[in-house]
Amino acid sequence: MQRHFVQELETLKTNLIKMSSFVEKAIAESIRALLERHKEAADQVIAEDERINALEIEIDNAVVDLLALQQPVASDLRFILAATKINNDLERIGDHAVNIAESAIDFATTAPLDIKVDIPQMAEITKGMLRDAIDGFIHQNPDISRMVLKNDDVIDELNKKVIDDMVKLIRREPDTLDQALELIRVSRNLERVSDLATNIAEEVIFIADAQVVKHHFERRDGALRRT
Amino acid sequence: MQRHFVQELETLKTNLIKMSSFVEKAIAESIRALLERHKEAADQVIAEDERINALEIEIDNAVVDLLALQQPVASDLRFILAATKINNDLERIGDHAVNIAESAIDFATTAPLDIKVDIPQMAEITKGMLRDAIDGFIHQNPDISRMVLKNDDVIDELNKKVIDDMVKLIRREPDTLDQALELIRVSRNLERVSDLATNIAEEVIFIADAQVVKHHFERRDGALRRT
Repeated sequence: MQRHFVQELETLKTNLIKMSSFVEKAIAESIRALLERHKEAADQVIAEDERINALEIEIDNAVVDLLALQQPVASDLRFILAATKINNDLERIGDHAVNIAESAIDFATTAPLDIKVDIPQMAEITKGMLRDAIDGFIHQNPDISRMVLKNDDVIDELNKKVIDDMVKLIRREPDTLDQALELIRVSRNLERVSDLATNIAEEVIFIADAQVVKHHFERRDGALRRT
Repeated sequence: MQRHFVQELETLKTNLIKMSSFVEKAIAESIRALLERHKEAADQVIAEDERINALEIEIDNAVVDLLALQQPVASDLRFILAATKINNDLERIGDHAVNIAESAIDFATTAPLDIKVDIPQMAEITKGMLRDAIDGFIHQNPDISRMVLKNDDVIDELNKKVIDDMVKLIRREPDTLDQALELIRVSRNLERVSDLATNIAEEVIFIADAQVVKHHFERRDGALRRT
């Protein structure tokens, strides 16, 4: 029985890592589709979201079985409940990749823009945050998770900068309105992904410290904000 | 022991209803602050988000205690796990109210706009969806929940219309750019609230039907989409 429980916990961790790698790839591919104006790559991201949704349900069902059959207590219970939240956060990140892919499809039909945007940099940082968030959870290492919280501030600043840049662009060249609005939408979606990675990191810190940093952090540091 | 469990389940339901009424009020007040250009009302929404965050944590802790001490099985377990997800969804709706309040503060500093927007109507429908979503959960009535799913399509259409209207406005009167971007942001936040109410409704249908409509619905009806 005990060995069975340990095995099921390991399967849960493996499935969360798999889920995380699916959504990281979805983000990467949606951004590539946007930057390369590659409609087929965007379609692919949208099609593959089914796989992410199916895995979310599989993980949720495994959690119900684990709780019903094994009735874990204390730290195992907190870990498993955190896993269900993280599972849900990852599925939502997949939805944001779909949103970005939809923007990529619309963007591909517009005239090319000759400007520098910070979106590739935002995407790189956000993917790193996601990896760190999952890494911190799997190894229950709050030090890794705290790095995620710092990067969330960086993403918030970059999001503001992208919006500012786009507003200036529209004022300078009103014909770029459609493109600029899509890029604002992409930037806001990446900022949401960063928030969700931050949620995951906060779960780990919550478990580790057995104290609530989740909302206190928002109070201590005004830069943390959800969009 | 059994009576104690029933009591704790009742407390959980009561607290979720309380949480729901807090976030519904936050949405209503943030929209009022936007429409009336009332900065203090917006500040109030942001300040009161603390209370929502605190209640989320209280509910989460109660769930851990419930699972650890009572070790419920089968339908009670599914209900309690759904409650934690709904709790999290409600807290996120509170965050969207904060976003709208932030937009309201920025909006209040801009020149008045003499146009009709569908945002009040979106807000009314969205608040109704939230009430139905919670009602469906508390009474475990999937018929109520299915009404929420239908309204999500209405909100998606209204969101597209607001964005279209704002794009036309910017083209016609470029000076309205700042106001129009804030209204697009508010519209997208309301659309996210509608998605979260829909998530809650899907949990209920999931439990009731013991089958996964959650993602299948997205496949059957292309209009359901997350932003």
